[in-house]
Amino acid sequence: MANAALVSCSLNLSWSCSKPSSCITPAASVSLQASQSPFRKIHLNGDKRLRKYRTVYAMTVSMGQETRAQPGSGSNHSSNEASSPKKVMVIGGDGYCGWATSLHLSNKNYEVAVVDNLVRRSFDHQLGLDSLTPIASIHNRIRRWKSLTGKDIGLYVGDICDFEFLSEAFKSFEPDAVVHFGEQRSAPYSMIDRSRAVYTQHNNVIGTLNVLFAIKEFGEDCHLVKLGTMGEYGTPNIDIEEGFITITHNGRTDTLPYPKQASSFYHLSKVHDSHNIAFTCKAWGIRATDLNQGVVYGVKTEETAMHEELYNRLDYDAVFGTALNRFCVQAAVGHPLTVYGKGGQTRGYLDIRDTVQCIELAIANPAQRGEFRVFNQFTEQFSVNELAALVMKAGKKLGLDVRTVSVPNPRVEAEEHYYNAKHTKLTELGLEPHLLSDSLLDSLLNFAIQYKDRVDSKQIMPSVSWRKIGAKPKTVPA
Amino acid sequence: MANAALVSCSLNLSWSCSKPSSCITPAASVSLQASQSPFRKIHLNGDKRLRKYRTVYAMTVSMGQETRAQPGSGSNHSSNEASSPKKVMVIGGDGYCGWATSLHLSNKNYEVAVVDNLVRRSFDHQLGLDSLTPIASIHNRIRRWKSLTGKDIGLYVGDICDFEFLSEAFKSFEPDAVVHFGEQRSAPYSMIDRSRAVYTQHNNVIGTLNVLFAIKEFGEDCHLVKLGTMGEYGTPNIDIEEGFITITHNGRTDTLPYPKQASSFYHLSKVHDSHNIAFTCKAWGIRATDLNQGVVYGVKTEETAMHEELYNRLDYDAVFGTALNRFCVQAAVGHPLTVYGKGGQTRGYLDIRDTVQCIELAIANPAQRGEFRVFNQFTEQFSVNELAALVMKAGKKLGLDVRTVSVPNPRVEAEEHYYNAKHTKLTELGLEPHLLSDSLLDSLLNFAIQYKDRVDSKQIMPSVSWRKIGAKPKTVPA
Repeated sequence: MANAALVSCSLNLSWSCSKPSSCITPAASVSLQASQSPFRKIHLNGDKRLRKYRTVYAMTVSMGQETRAQPGSGSNHSSNEASSPKKVMVIGGDGYCGWATSLHLSNKNYEVAVVDNLVRRSFDHQLGLDSLTPIASIHNRIRRWKSLTGKDIGLYVGDICDFEFLSEAFKSFEPDAVVHFGEQRSAPYSMIDRSRAVYTQHNNVIGTLNVLFAIKEFGEDCHLVKLGTMGEYGTPNIDIEEGFITITHNGRTDTLPYPKQASSFYHLSKVHDSHNIAFTCKAWGIRATDLNQGVVYGVKTEETAMHEELYNRLDYDAVFGTALNRFCVQAAVGHPLTVYGKGGQTRGYLDIRDTVQCIELAIANPAQRGEFRVFNQFTEQFSVNELAALVMKAGKKLGLDVRTVSVPNPRVEAEEHYYNAKHTKLTELGLEPHLLSDSLLDSLLNFAIQYKDRVDSKQIMPSVSWRKIGAKPKTVPA
Repeated sequence: MANAALVSCSLNLSWSCSKPSSCITPAASVSLQASQSPFRKIHLNGDKRLRKYRTVYAMTVSMGQETRAQPGSGSNHSSNEASSPKKVMVIGGDGYCGWATSLHLSNKNYEVAVVDNLVRRSFDHQLGLDSLTPIASIHNRIRRWKSLTGKDIGLYVGDICDFEFLSEAFKSFEPDAVVHFGEQRSAPYSMIDRSRAVYTQHNNVIGTLNVLFAIKEFGEDCHLVKLGTMGEYGTPNIDIEEGFITITHNGRTDTLPYPKQASSFYHLSKVHDSHNIAFTCKAWGIRATDLNQGVVYGVKTEETAMHEELYNRLDYDAVFGTALNRFCVQAAVGHPLTVYGKGGQTRGYLDIRDTVQCIELAIANPAQRGEFRVFNQFTEQFSVNELAALVMKAGKKLGLDVRTVSVPNPRVEAEEHYYNAKHTKLTELGLEPHLLSDSLLDSLLNFAIQYKDRVDSKQIMPSVSWRKIGAKPKTVPA
């Protein structure tokens, strides 16, 4: 699949976010400005081959024989594509949700630029983890997309905590919308040790502040589509509304932000972001949509399925893997499904194909100037025990002997609780959900079986404890 | 008053927080460990004079002729002093509320250590501001206190964002309670430019995270008394409760964190802190009291009034000055009282003598393990127009011709709104409020008249706009 030479080429890139850099002193970073990017300037038509090398900042990009143009091939132009394509910057566009979203929006004829410091790949290196699926470098991914569809995706490699870098990306690309996935997104990662807790809150909060300042400074009309999490709400004993709740108290009534009870330094960072963004909508007239996303499952979207080099990552480890994906991989390798505690923990879930659909709906129906809009982005609720039962049933059909094991809960959370969260706003905008079905589970299980030789069983059991987190930096032995 | 030679000596100290340093890589900082501090080890008795010089890290401290011991002199031992003195670390103990609190607790026989990076003094230098009252260096302050009362106050100069420094301070002093004032505390400062917004959130959020980790690591039983702000609540159209509100919704009931609607990057940083602290109480069993303080006025406490070298700072400028203090100084120099917008903005206020009383009450009645307790710390509500009218009336008695002027509101806030905030919990613990009276206003006005030659009229008008804040660093011309 991936061309090894090109992959190793991409690894020569440096990124600046593996340590929390100062936010005022710009860190050294590699930025590929759209106007200088070979991906955006070189148009491949017919069977014309480009063999030229072009130096862009610190990076040499080879546009070799892999880049034969196949305009439109594999591309599926749906009926609801934007009539006037808009420019969308996808921050964190190399990640699990970000990559699928970037391709989807490009396929829908949005002009897309990925902004990413590639630190998610670095986390894998640091912790000795790897995606179940082999993933191509971001450069090969973008080249492959171009060769298959003729569509350009811009690339800016750098750290949004470095405002100088972010400014250049904004001024160069001039986005109409920014989709912001560019945060450290693992609760267990944020609970490894003090330095990772601090990194997570610094990176997420300051990065988002910088995005807000960039919008104010360089494109006040730009729509911020920010990924929050359903985990911001915690598990209150009343219905969860979408962002706001109307409270009558001592004879008076007001509609106020829904109370937040996040339960990891990661989830808390998203709470902080939500408060910061709401303020800038009011004070500066920023238009923002906060998507409180549930747990995402699945790996294939219409676009990532087109070629192995477009495949999305799939995390099954105890740090980055999320419940359903993790269970399917465990089932495939014959490892008992690891249910944390009593397994009554209930959350909202959605198919990654619905993540990309929701983002597109938010962009196509932007918030008003000054509006801080909150959508709960999930399609169904399940408890952990319910998920385990579904995977056991689907595994049985495939001849797998699936068992479950209750492991001590590494988190601090209620294991039996009321949970009823509203999620109607995206449906009202036209979301057509892919509900969790036997066929989805079959395909996810078969996918896991296909790659099961890549599974490292040592990464399955939880190793991060909410209670035992210490101040000392934790390193991972070989 | 202050011995000039000694003051300049203290200015040789470097601090590491004028730029947001990395939180993982320890910044260079000057730390005075208790075990090595001349202030805590040298006991002055009778008329014995110490003339020795002692080198502590980068600092040379002269214990010269100013340090004659006068044990007990000027000290007022009240009847409710702690029977078994406890160790209290006051982070930000060189600031407006922190210094008054440090002296008050020391006077009540708590063993006190000040932790401060002295960056508040640096802000004055950077912005060309100064306290109305001349203030002595922290070293002279502590020396003077010792000479007047015989009581030691420990000193740790360094940045709590530097965890290595904070760890050493914790391990050395072993506090039973930490009072945390050590944050950038001005809303306008946080709205000057992007770098100050980022600095404020980084400094406050990461500093508090470090304090939480230090408690978990080095003294799990230590009680955190954290200064929040009434501004976390904003101005909802329903009564403001103390931290939590019981909501009945769709037939179910739960008590949840009171919704937050902060309206500056500073106020938001306190909201972030509150969420972080609440989580660690639940996850780690931290005991914490979040004091949502109103606007503090006044300058003298029983202890700061004892000597000019113990005087507290009094800020009247548009960045650090708060409403009532600012109005009194304006009245004293014949400047119209600057009412922002319509002047209907209503907030909770308290006398600085009640600040120190509230802190003492919180320490004497600690939160339980795992308890996140929120007290609203103010005694009376006033609108800006009401305050202006009170100052006009008091000024008239003193023969001052006080006028008001409405200036365009630099902030984004409601200028006419409902406001009714509960504040009974501290009263239940025994708070005996000093209500705002004519006599207090007279003394504050007379104090302002005494120092009116030190007023820089250029600092009075608001210069920071919530709407016009830009991404570029803002510098102040000479």
